[in-house]
Amino acid sequence: MSESAGNAGFYFDDLHVGMRFETGTHTVTEDQIREFATRFDPQPFHLDDALARTSVFGGLAASGWHTAAITMRLMVDLGIPAGGLIGTGCEVSWPRPTRPGDTLRVMSEVMEVVPSRSRNDRGTVVMRSETRNQNDEIVQQLTARMVAFCRPAVG
Amino acid sequence: MSESAGNAGFYFDDLHVGMRFETGTHTVTEDQIREFATRFDPQPFHLDDALARTSVFGGLAASGWHTAAITMRLMVDLGIPAGGLIGTGCEVSWPRPTRPGDTLRVMSEVMEVVPSRSRNDRGTVVMRSETRNQNDEIVQQLTARMVAFCRPAVG
Repeated sequence: MSESAGNAGFYFDDLHVGMRFETGTHTVTEDQIREFATRFDPQPFHLDDALARTSVFGGLAASGWHTAAITMRLMVDLGIPAGGLIGTGCEVSWPRPTRPGDTLRVMSEVMEVVPSRSRNDRGTVVMRSETRNQNDEIVQQLTARMVAFCRPAVG
Repeated sequence: MSESAGNAGFYFDDLHVGMRFETGTHTVTEDQIREFATRFDPQPFHLDDALARTSVFGGLAASGWHTAAITMRLMVDLGIPAGGLIGTGCEVSWPRPTRPGDTLRVMSEVMEVVPSRSRNDRGTVVMRSETRNQNDEIVQQLTARMVAFCRPAVG
């Protein structure tokens, strides 16, 4: 289903609409959820399971920004596009929360490939990525616009 | 300019289109940039100033997701809407990077206030937030759709 499970060095030149990629996985611990939340999103439902049970989440839930950061890490480790993942903007939504013990992976599809009109060494790639848990439930949908560089000239 | 610089307890009932809020500030250190990047976005331009100078960023730059996480923390500390900042989705863009030493603050404006049709204790609020550095330059634009709860009944 995916065209690559490793860093195969896909530069702008190599990308085309419809290509699909799948990252490795990351299992999220309760400690990681609390640590991220303590620093960046210190709300009771991200910090304390007992309080979270009485909240709209019904139990401890990772900050959406934590899910986004884990998603980024998985995508960086995959390394597509080659030369750097440099986002200029995105849309993100969280249909359900990430829970302690969830094992996340990201499945991406190339939606647009647009050469730069002013710079011949790069272009823009739009990728749609779903972050799924071990039950194949979607915890994040991300549509990201990224700079992608052309394959460097040899010599 | 802002209606509140502290947690004034603005519930869904209290919010209306055009209200503006301003958070406190956070100064970002080089260590914080590298620490976040090491965990979530380990690309050379977020980790090493020398390598970053030869990159499209022209110097060490925070991960966009780090800027997003700092923005969330500033907004959580402000505490609007009261009862929790629970985003269901957003659009985010990073017109310029956050740099070591930058002092960030967030200016938000309420764009939409929509009562829930099925639950009378809540509604949806759309807030547009700009994260600005000490030179008043925008490092992040965020339009976030959030659940907001009505003021709890007394007694």
